[in-house]
Amino acid sequence: MNNPQLNKHGELQHLLSTEGLPVSILRDILDRTASFVNVAAGSEIKKVPLLHGKSVFNLFFENSTRTRTTFEIAAKRLSADVVNLNIGSSSSSKGETLLDTVDNLCAMHADMFVVRHSQSGAAHLIARHVAPRIHVINAGDGRHAHPTQALLDMFTIRHYKKEFHNLRVVIVGDILHSRVARSQIHALTTLGVPEVRVIAPRTLLPACVERLGVHVYHDMLQGLREVDVVMMLRLQNERMQGALLPSAQEYFKYYGLTQEKLALAKADAIVMHPGPMNRGVEIDSSVADGTHSVILPQVTFGIAVRMAAMSMLAGK
Amino acid sequence: MNNPQLNKHGELQHLLSTEGLPVSILRDILDRTASFVNVAAGSEIKKVPLLHGKSVFNLFFENSTRTRTTFEIAAKRLSADVVNLNIGSSSSSKGETLLDTVDNLCAMHADMFVVRHSQSGAAHLIARHVAPRIHVINAGDGRHAHPTQALLDMFTIRHYKKEFHNLRVVIVGDILHSRVARSQIHALTTLGVPEVRVIAPRTLLPACVERLGVHVYHDMLQGLREVDVVMMLRLQNERMQGALLPSAQEYFKYYGLTQEKLALAKADAIVMHPGPMNRGVEIDSSVADGTHSVILPQVTFGIAVRMAAMSMLAGK
Amino acid sequence: MNNPQLNKHGELQHLLSTEGLPVSILRDILDRTASFVNVAAGSEIKKVPLLHGKSVFNLFFENSTRTRTTFEIAAKRLSADVVNLNIGSSSSSKGETLLDTVDNLCAMHADMFVVRHSQSGAAHLIARHVAPRIHVINAGDGRHAHPTQALLDMFTIRHYKKEFHNLRVVIVGDILHSRVARSQIHALTTLGVPEVRVIAPRTLLPACVERLGVHVYHDMLQGLREVDVVMMLRLQNERMQGALLPSAQEYFKYYGLTQEKLALAKADAIVMHPGPMNRGVEIDSSVADGTHSVILPQVTFGIAVRMAAMSMLAGK
Repeated sequence: MNNPQLNKHGELQHLLSTEGLPVSILRDILDRTASFVNVAAGSEIKKVPLLHGKSVFNLFFENSTRTRTTFEIAAKRLSADVVNLNIGSSSSSKGETLLDTVDNLCAMHADMFVVRHSQSGAAHLIARHVAPRIHVINAGDGRHAHPTQALLDMFTIRHYKKEFHNLRVVIVGDILHSRVARSQIHALTTLGVPEVRVIAPRTLLPACVERLGVHVYHDMLQGLREVDVVMMLRLQNERMQGALLPSAQEYFKYYGLTQEKLALAKADAIVMHPGPMNRGVEIDSSVADGTHSVILPQVTFGIAVRMAAMSMLAGK
Repeated sequence: MNNPQLNKHGELQHLLSTEGLPVSILRDILDRTASFVNVAAGSEIKKVPLLHGKSVFNLFFENSTRTRTTFEIAAKRLSADVVNLNIGSSSSSKGETLLDTVDNLCAMHADMFVVRHSQSGAAHLIARHVAPRIHVINAGDGRHAHPTQALLDMFTIRHYKKEFHNLRVVIVGDILHSRVARSQIHALTTLGVPEVRVIAPRTLLPACVERLGVHVYHDMLQGLREVDVVMMLRLQNERMQGALLPSAQEYFKYYGLTQEKLALAKADAIVMHPGPMNRGVEIDSSVADGTHSVILPQVTFGIAVRMAAMSMLAGK
Repeated sequence: MNNPQLNKHGELQHLLSTEGLPVSILRDILDRTASFVNVAAGSEIKKVPLLHGKSVFNLFFENSTRTRTTFEIAAKRLSADVVNLNIGSSSSSKGETLLDTVDNLCAMHADMFVVRHSQSGAAHLIARHVAPRIHVINAGDGRHAHPTQALLDMFTIRHYKKEFHNLRVVIVGDILHSRVARSQIHALTTLGVPEVRVIAPRTLLPACVERLGVHVYHDMLQGLREVDVVMMLRLQNERMQGALLPSAQEYFKYYGLTQEKLALAKADAIVMHPGPMNRGVEIDSSVADGTHSVILPQVTFGIAVRMAAMSMLAGK
């Protein structure tokens, strides 16, 4: 079976998952992101005409104002026309199937779909269905993947640490339900990070997680030791009320990142978070706003990485 | 009484209904649509600057993401600024009258209104009210009219059948509640189609429908014979639960389009549907996706016909 | 404490309130508004490229389609990229704090925030928090301020009355809950209006309102005498059901503006209303649509004043 993310020339056709992306493509995206970061920093005007005349559809079957906004900004800075479709509340309630909705938008000469869906595999399904001139970006599907988040995380790490081959990286939190964690792990291992750790309570770890090539810890006091990079995960509100966790307070006590715990990491460790943060649940405010935190640079890089992915997909 | 759709020079001032539109205007719109279809097909960049600097307001008193999207895309491809107003959930709940809302938007230098409303006549009311420099497009009002849908249907028929004067066309489904059917019938007769049929159960037919110049059938096995064009209507979900129909399954049995029934039409008949489709209710999937179906080209032509109407109204 | 609205050169940095704005800044905004009014009136194309490449975020924590639309149109006519964020229904429900949301948008290289919030002081809080390159416009905060509404009102008065120093102006209605009234009073007194009156029932007046420099009336028959300008306020629907008022009918009888009452004002008095109007509650239709009414010109000037404020903030 071919890699659905690449065309026959080995170029990026869709961005669905960091799993299966060749390291050369990952590096291309990161290099191109760097050029967009530099343009934004050096210039009064943040727009480039690379996608002028192109139609980008934000196809959000699951509501996420924040993620939708990042793609909308990225597309507008590339001069594309952007149409936001909150599908949860429209056609699908009229009984139309997912692929009929997609076919209709393709017939309107869509050039790119940014897809968010609660079902794992939705973006892949759409990518397999559309004509070759149309490109699909997965903006989060179920528990499966969220590749642009992982790519901005990789760019952030490279920005601060320069190299991947000498790093010890830890991901902390609800690995079980996290598409972000899956995408991060694939990207980190592909880029050559020699030691990737995860820290989570047993109830928030997928079965056989070791097969992904990670080292498993249940205790932050062990897992944080001597790491270069700490990647925190958001604890979904619905988990806090569920049976998997005793309480948010209890979670913070064992798995919340405090300055005390962070002292176990290397002195120049960076702290990352995909946002939005639950201060006092997975991360203490003094860490979130502290000198190790690179959480806001992540957001800035997130726009650039989406501009990079969109322009690469458009062949520009 | 003057035709509210034409100015004193006989040019298109508003697009409210296919009823009362001279055949010359209908043909102008279809010819202009053809040029937009060709531009889109031949070009990398789908934008033209015809409405640059103009403000188009999508004034949707009734929610319809799909229809709103088609007008938004059409306006953006003409380089207009588009403002989406979902009025159902805003000012009107603050007690403002419809015409006060319209007056306010006119005072903001609106150039064009695209109006969707659950009340028949809403777009006409607005058109009579606004200054001559402002143009109104009816995007569906109650059970009354949906002219751009009918126009894209006419374009589709002309595209595949070249001429109107030698055609037998049938409209199938819920004629009673359908603004689409009314607009189709007026357009077909104006353009010179010699035989227009409707097929529907008695409970879904308006009284005295024959006065519109159509032949009435209650049985698909009769009404489909030797037709050139089959125009299916969407069965609204709310009808399926109502007293007018026994069940969706029963409806499909008698009025759903299957390959077996379609075989009664001419060998080169085309099948149309305004979308969104209820597969297995009014149309079988094998027909919707089959070789006679022109349902997706209808969608493509729908963008072009809206670009044509908007640019004609703007005098460009 | 420094004036948070001005930078160290005394230029407009944020537009948060008419209170504390120097008269020179007020006059600058009104003069600049006049030039935008003239551009719009004289030209086919209403767009200018002053904010090309800038990102304006409509940050609405309180829903207001009407106000959001005026800012969206103003920003688009300045060629900015506009992103609408209805925050009430998104990130804040994910537990993110107001300032974390703002920090994230700043990290996406926002240039300007237009903020609407039910809490007084929200726009000030954001303005104090952001970097100096970012500008904040208050589009209404609690009962506190709504400066662009007051500025468009001042522009309207100057347009029709030429001067402020010889005017008698009255504000009628629910002063207690009105951010509009507060902003109007500060602007009128700063611009040198010698006599500002308010008319309201005792239950709808703030304590110690006289300290703002206004003359208080409870009877329209007294307060309207010989005024040059009548500024009506909207009666919020929720007040009508509350304990502060007997009924909408009763309110109209005592505080609704009729032609009979308006006859007490000067013969060339103008009547203003911020919209949306409750016809038959605070204003009779014959007055709203009558020769003294300048309610729709207010709306037109509202776009221009917002373009003026935005371009001044951007240093253009």
